[in-house]
Amino acid sequence: MSSWTLEQVAQHKSPESCWVIIHNKVYDDHPGGAEIILKYAGRDATVVYDPIHPPDALDKNLPPTKHLGPIDSKAADVIAKERSSLALTKDEIRVEEARKRMPPLRRILNLTDMEKVAEQILSHKAFAYYSSASDDEITNIENARAFTRYFFKARVMRPVAHCDPSTKILGFKSSIPVFVSGAALAKLGHPDGEVNITKGCFKEGIIQMVSSNASLSPATIIDAAHKSQTLFFQLYKHRNDEIAEKRVREIERLGYKAIFLTVDAIVPGNRERDVRSPWILEEQESGPLYHVETDNDMLKEDVNIFGTAGALVANDDRDMTWEKTIPWLRRLSKLPIVIKGVQCVEDAVLAAEAQVDGILLSNHGGRQLEYSLPPLEVLYSIRQQRPDVFERLEVYVDGGVRRGTDVIKAICLGAKAVGLGRPFLYAQSAYGADGVVKIIQILKREITTAMRLLGASTVEDLHPDMIQRVDWQAYIRPKL
Amino acid sequence: MSSWTLEQVAQHKSPESCWVIIHNKVYDDHPGGAEIILKYAGRDATVVYDPIHPPDALDKNLPPTKHLGPIDSKAADVIAKERSSLALTKDEIRVEEARKRMPPLRRILNLTDMEKVAEQILSHKAFAYYSSASDDEITNIENARAFTRYFFKARVMRPVAHCDPSTKILGFKSSIPVFVSGAALAKLGHPDGEVNITKGCFKEGIIQMVSSNASLSPATIIDAAHKSQTLFFQLYKHRNDEIAEKRVREIERLGYKAIFLTVDAIVPGNRERDVRSPWILEEQESGPLYHVETDNDMLKEDVNIFGTAGALVANDDRDMTWEKTIPWLRRLSKLPIVIKGVQCVEDAVLAAEAQVDGILLSNHGGRQLEYSLPPLEVLYSIRQQRPDVFERLEVYVDGGVRRGTDVIKAICLGAKAVGLGRPFLYAQSAYGADGVVKIIQILKREITTAMRLLGASTVEDLHPDMIQRVDWQAYIRPKL
Amino acid sequence: MSSWTLEQVAQHKSPESCWVIIHNKVYDDHPGGAEIILKYAGRDATVVYDPIHPPDALDKNLPPTKHLGPIDSKAADVIAKERSSLALTKDEIRVEEARKRMPPLRRILNLTDMEKVAEQILSHKAFAYYSSASDDEITNIENARAFTRYFFKARVMRPVAHCDPSTKILGFKSSIPVFVSGAALAKLGHPDGEVNITKGCFKEGIIQMVSSNASLSPATIIDAAHKSQTLFFQLYKHRNDEIAEKRVREIERLGYKAIFLTVDAIVPGNRERDVRSPWILEEQESGPLYHVETDNDMLKEDVNIFGTAGALVANDDRDMTWEKTIPWLRRLSKLPIVIKGVQCVEDAVLAAEAQVDGILLSNHGGRQLEYSLPPLEVLYSIRQQRPDVFERLEVYVDGGVRRGTDVIKAICLGAKAVGLGRPFLYAQSAYGADGVVKIIQILKREITTAMRLLGASTVEDLHPDMIQRVDWQAYIRPKL
Amino acid sequence: MSSWTLEQVAQHKSPESCWVIIHNKVYDDHPGGAEIILKYAGRDATVVYDPIHPPDALDKNLPPTKHLGPIDSKAADVIAKERSSLALTKDEIRVEEARKRMPPLRRILNLTDMEKVAEQILSHKAFAYYSSASDDEITNIENARAFTRYFFKARVMRPVAHCDPSTKILGFKSSIPVFVSGAALAKLGHPDGEVNITKGCFKEGIIQMVSSNASLSPATIIDAAHKSQTLFFQLYKHRNDEIAEKRVREIERLGYKAIFLTVDAIVPGNRERDVRSPWILEEQESGPLYHVETDNDMLKEDVNIFGTAGALVANDDRDMTWEKTIPWLRRLSKLPIVIKGVQCVEDAVLAAEAQVDGILLSNHGGRQLEYSLPPLEVLYSIRQQRPDVFERLEVYVDGGVRRGTDVIKAICLGAKAVGLGRPFLYAQSAYGADGVVKIIQILKREITTAMRLLGASTVEDLHPDMIQRVDWQAYIRPKL
Repeated sequence: MSSWTLEQVAQHKSPESCWVIIHNKVYDDHPGGAEIILKYAGRDATVVYDPIHPPDALDKNLPPTKHLGPIDSKAADVIAKERSSLALTKDEIRVEEARKRMPPLRRILNLTDMEKVAEQILSHKAFAYYSSASDDEITNIENARAFTRYFFKARVMRPVAHCDPSTKILGFKSSIPVFVSGAALAKLGHPDGEVNITKGCFKEGIIQMVSSNASLSPATIIDAAHKSQTLFFQLYKHRNDEIAEKRVREIERLGYKAIFLTVDAIVPGNRERDVRSPWILEEQESGPLYHVETDNDMLKEDVNIFGTAGALVANDDRDMTWEKTIPWLRRLSKLPIVIKGVQCVEDAVLAAEAQVDGILLSNHGGRQLEYSLPPLEVLYSIRQQRPDVFERLEVYVDGGVRRGTDVIKAICLGAKAVGLGRPFLYAQSAYGADGVVKIIQILKREITTAMRLLGASTVEDLHPDMIQRVDWQAYIRPKL
Repeated sequence: MSSWTLEQVAQHKSPESCWVIIHNKVYDDHPGGAEIILKYAGRDATVVYDPIHPPDALDKNLPPTKHLGPIDSKAADVIAKERSSLALTKDEIRVEEARKRMPPLRRILNLTDMEKVAEQILSHKAFAYYSSASDDEITNIENARAFTRYFFKARVMRPVAHCDPSTKILGFKSSIPVFVSGAALAKLGHPDGEVNITKGCFKEGIIQMVSSNASLSPATIIDAAHKSQTLFFQLYKHRNDEIAEKRVREIERLGYKAIFLTVDAIVPGNRERDVRSPWILEEQESGPLYHVETDNDMLKEDVNIFGTAGALVANDDRDMTWEKTIPWLRRLSKLPIVIKGVQCVEDAVLAAEAQVDGILLSNHGGRQLEYSLPPLEVLYSIRQQRPDVFERLEVYVDGGVRRGTDVIKAICLGAKAVGLGRPFLYAQSAYGADGVVKIIQILKREITTAMRLLGASTVEDLHPDMIQRVDWQAYIRPKL
Repeated sequence: MSSWTLEQVAQHKSPESCWVIIHNKVYDDHPGGAEIILKYAGRDATVVYDPIHPPDALDKNLPPTKHLGPIDSKAADVIAKERSSLALTKDEIRVEEARKRMPPLRRILNLTDMEKVAEQILSHKAFAYYSSASDDEITNIENARAFTRYFFKARVMRPVAHCDPSTKILGFKSSIPVFVSGAALAKLGHPDGEVNITKGCFKEGIIQMVSSNASLSPATIIDAAHKSQTLFFQLYKHRNDEIAEKRVREIERLGYKAIFLTVDAIVPGNRERDVRSPWILEEQESGPLYHVETDNDMLKEDVNIFGTAGALVANDDRDMTWEKTIPWLRRLSKLPIVIKGVQCVEDAVLAAEAQVDGILLSNHGGRQLEYSLPPLEVLYSIRQQRPDVFERLEVYVDGGVRRGTDVIKAICLGAKAVGLGRPFLYAQSAYGADGVVKIIQILKREITTAMRLLGASTVEDLHPDMIQRVDWQAYIRPKL
Repeated sequence: MSSWTLEQVAQHKSPESCWVIIHNKVYDDHPGGAEIILKYAGRDATVVYDPIHPPDALDKNLPPTKHLGPIDSKAADVIAKERSSLALTKDEIRVEEARKRMPPLRRILNLTDMEKVAEQILSHKAFAYYSSASDDEITNIENARAFTRYFFKARVMRPVAHCDPSTKILGFKSSIPVFVSGAALAKLGHPDGEVNITKGCFKEGIIQMVSSNASLSPATIIDAAHKSQTLFFQLYKHRNDEIAEKRVREIERLGYKAIFLTVDAIVPGNRERDVRSPWILEEQESGPLYHVETDNDMLKEDVNIFGTAGALVANDDRDMTWEKTIPWLRRLSKLPIVIKGVQCVEDAVLAAEAQVDGILLSNHGGRQLEYSLPPLEVLYSIRQQRPDVFERLEVYVDGGVRRGTDVIKAICLGAKAVGLGRPFLYAQSAYGADGVVKIIQILKREITTAMRLLGASTVEDLHPDMIQRVDWQAYIRPKL
């Protein structure tokens, strides 16, 4: 296999023949979708490829015939020189400055503090991706607001000198009833990516659920884990059953301990903040783009390369059913199965009937269906209407959790554990694995304090009678 | 018939004898009301006449004896010169600048984006007319807010790879369950007027309901339509049954496919934003007007020529009844009859008993009776109290719809389709027919995404059980 | 009786002997309370006395022995000179400027417009007195907000070409179901005082209820009325039954047509905005006052002369009862009796049992008991719990009414008419009697429009079924 | 015992051997916790020790062997000189200026006025400590907001000329149904500390509950009281029963009349505003602190000396129970026992069954468990579900009370009296004992006014029927 010149590659920038250079190798086509790749067709695309793909993604997803071989050394020199001579963008300069002014980690008092730091030090693109939610982001906000309608009926005069917040999730020990819920594309925020979370979780004894869309491969992540550490896997099922099967078998072989089958993201949500991000950056550099009336630009969609969750779910199975998919998965693997993305009582019952091991009540952090009910409200409805579900499988909740009291409310209502996503992404972006440790320590302190003040010395003491749903909306204090 | 000099015309500027020049022709009287015309009596009124009247309005509404013939060529020269030498007003300059800075259409992500562009590029007068609503505009706001009290109980594990959002309205095919609801005076925003909407609807396969108050005649509009295209007509019934009959027969003859009889606008609503518009423009040019205590100006109403919906409905029938008006209309025409402006369950039942073909639950976009219930709430009440109504006629809803999820909520509760008005006016004002296409494309994308995430592959799958009315008010996020 | 020198008067400025000069006459003591008068003791007090007392108040309330006779001409000269040489205060200059910039009356579209003008052109003192309410002014705000929880179920297809909003109140004709509710101290805003209201009411055919605390005497006001005009009287019963009886007999003799016995203001409300007003004015002139630690100023209350409603109700009867007071009043007068200030269903029933002719549901515009229920809510509770009350007496409502739709909601729920106070004070302050006419014309237009759009052609058509109490709080739009 | 040099003391600044100088005496160790003291180890700590400890605290809590004796005179000179040469901090300068601009006490109209003055004149540290509450301070806000959901059904035509707001609490007379609820660390705001409150309470005839955490000893406070004055004691039970017993016996011997056993503060709440206070002061002086990545500072908690309530409750008993603790206390003392910190109906019933004399419904002013129900809501629930509790013991409420109407609402619902804490701290900080008198006078005036307008002449007339819980949230007016 010979090496390529830049001129040769540059001739392949049409939909018909579309080559890109990544890490000095030439590839034909791109798994994400023709439109996205066309913007970088015929030239080096490393800088946009890296943060959203595991290093082994091309090897795994592109057939060998698409691997066209290396560029020549002159081309490599040109590319290297271009990259080094590239002036920093305004956003990069802003980030560089902000990173110098990060507060000491020991002054981060709560998860909102961490989010504020992350907002400062993340690139516009990364923060837009992490923070964005569907449409008007109402579901995202309501997920958190739901917690403000649940108050405690605290019990006094109960012995709580000893207080143990630990629990088991699918039989695996967790130091607090909290796990990391499928936070993906961690390399957008920190070069070490998801491994920061893995290390932090081990140190503090909680479980990480690794996403199919992680920016590192499942193998890389589990390699970074301690051998005694529990990791779960968040599966996006490929529409091709054979590819899906291969993935499931790999996961089990690697040592993941459970499969969280994602069912609420079969098509991408409409995350406008994310879509707009490149336009805002472009405006910062070159000023706003104005409308020119020509026939061909009028109705063409603006293409953006990072904005969409589209590429990530493009090949997902949109025809899963309880009857077909669960038995298929059971046949493939002995791992416990949890359905991630249950959004109403009726489906919680169907899941129990399908005899899965657990359900994660979730609307994907408000990133998929706008106006999906807040998971805490779904949990409450299950408690009111079908409490038998809690006897038949484990129920988890994610979305909007930011305080130890939030966790405890969910546990009181019957959840076995609670997932958090964004806070871990923010923490690792700013402070790496130490940030992740900090988040868990904060939650542990908040949970223990609240349990004691509530009169509970173990998670088993947390009971629906300790919760009162109120008929007023708690006031949301502007940030301190 | 001789031609007139400017001096001759100028002598007729009293209530007793009131002439105006329009497109170089002289007319005696004016159908809209004496007060309005007096401001322009005895001189050229073309510039204020044009945007709110169909070109053939004078021919149709004024008897031949009122057509006094042309002005002479010298007069025509003077008028032309005056118009060309007219300095632009501050508002016209603002609009001219804003039109240069319009974003590319492909960067319009949602209907609010479109409204924001329209607010920039429309004349103050036009935006005031389009956006205004009654009194304190509470009904207008509540129409939209009502949607935030309805959440989805999304279903997962249902096959939705194939998803078809099309439906039929009165038996006519529509690519999505959306139609254009009586948006009038389109020429205030774009010289092509309502025809922009006609063209856009054809391209995307939805139905336009044309208003009696359109700035183009029903004939002009249907002439611009494709011969296979479905158009409905929004009828404001004239108090004179003969004139009304003539209009109905014309509509049927022209090929309109249904009559939407408007019953919520028999008198004009109190649209203060619209009324204040000329004063604000006057202040921009000449500074504020102060009070001088003289007997004769104290209690005289300020006259304004565009501000009121008054002229538009001045001759409407205020004595319509179920017993009299429906049979009268049935006798005249075989077209399906829909009552536009039903505002409570009781009248929905009366409509069913009167055997009309459909009802449009509407409070005229909050432009008529302040504190009329939001149509979505009326729809919900019908679902709760009289679900039999849905079996007896087709139910539509308009008012406050801005997102695909809004559409789907109404369909879940039993609506056959949903109407939108202002978004189409805004879109055509900014981008002509392409803007209209864009609006429909956005809705189509949003509807399809939401249907899939909700577990529905056809509109028939949308079911009341997928909706939960919540006891909290969803947070309205400040615009992104 | 000799005349006094300024020096002689100046010696009487102690609590033991306290003289004041008013309109060049010397008086011993003052009916309002020792503290207030002490500030002006021994000198001329005309300027603070005038706006809050009828001209005949001293003659009526002070025994002849307290009338000490005129000052001498030299003293009169000195006082006149002092007054003319007095520099305008900053607040007076502000008012003078603002009055020049008042908008033409014909551009006042609604009652809020009028309030905004009044806020500009009233002295700080007058606006503070008119607008103030108790404690945190929550009741005042809630009175108005209550209307936003009641929506219309509008009826269509009903003949409303003819629409008559007139009604009868205690058998007296009123052009709309609205009356002026006890607005007092009108001279604070306009030299003609309450007579402005009298004239405006006559012109537009509604009834004025005149307050005991009017800045003009009942005789002066009724003298200014047309002989066919109906006026009611708002009675604050004196604790001395003989003085009270004298007042009742005077009222009946003068020709007032009904007595509204005020029962919600037996002690003054805590109107802080009013109390603070003189301090703010003092700060404007001389800068803020700082604390100096001396024994004698620490806990002494700050005296202010206009701030309190205290003086106005100092002698009111605090021991009225249903058993004693109603029969006493019946014996004295044949006039219809209405109880003003009923605040709950239970007292509405007691009033019916006491066989009075009407009740005015009112919390005194939020100026007395903070957290008293909004009158509209009390009306709704009567409708729900004791609709028989409406058969037994006439029920009126005041507090928070600003729109024609507010009036109609109350009428639908069973009120016979609705009172407004502050809007009339604001209107007469800015534009005199014409302002009052304007307010009534606006309400008439708004009421007629809303009746027609609601499907009602007379007030008898307004029915509880047209109202729906909603479970959400309507959004209050920031002022246009 | 010899005297120490500064050099000798300076050698003891390690966790192993940690000395401090306080008022020129040397001590080994510190009762508050090793971390806090280490910051001042080996040197003078008087300035941070004084405001939060009673003068006799060291004598009482440190065994004699830890009292190492005085420093030498040279050391005393150096310390005195250092202190006098210390430049004022920015915060101290701000406070000094603000204290000069305090308004005269007679212009303080309500408790919010007082809070606003206190916010100006308190050190950042003191205001942070007084005002802070848990987590996002939602419970603190909701405590006050709860009152806005309860409206009055005021009764008219009842004799109220005579009105007596006095009551008895545990048999002890109180001029109004209000007491001072455990306000501690008063010396942070005023050098005289809690004694200001003692004096003010005596003057106005209400009862002070003295906190275990007062900055003066129980003996000092009761010494300052009038011999006829009633004081209660708020007990934080030490985990060591013997120490606790000693404290109880001392309290009874000193003449305190009741024991309020605190059960809602067994661990410190998470008061972030308080924790951040020293950081903010540090930033004011030296600029912000930035993150430097070194292994040892990453996850170490920031130590702060005043921030936490931690030290105050470090030795409290976390294993109290109804079965064990109440009988223990009964055996020790004949004083009435009140449980402070009951937060739900169930525990109110348990308290009645444990035959204590009273309960104080309280969530510690929102300073402990975030999302604990507002005490007023708990009171309302007891009234609805278990009204028998009111027959079995006295019920008090604290948290969020700021107006006389708040007090009356609680009394109507069954409370015997209402506690306030922060307002008294603010008042004494700004104006000493006079400030405390003022607060009580304001409440007395507000309570009497509201009782009269409500139709009640004694507290026995205040009845549940006078209260209506409403289904809307009252509007909170921005501060006047």
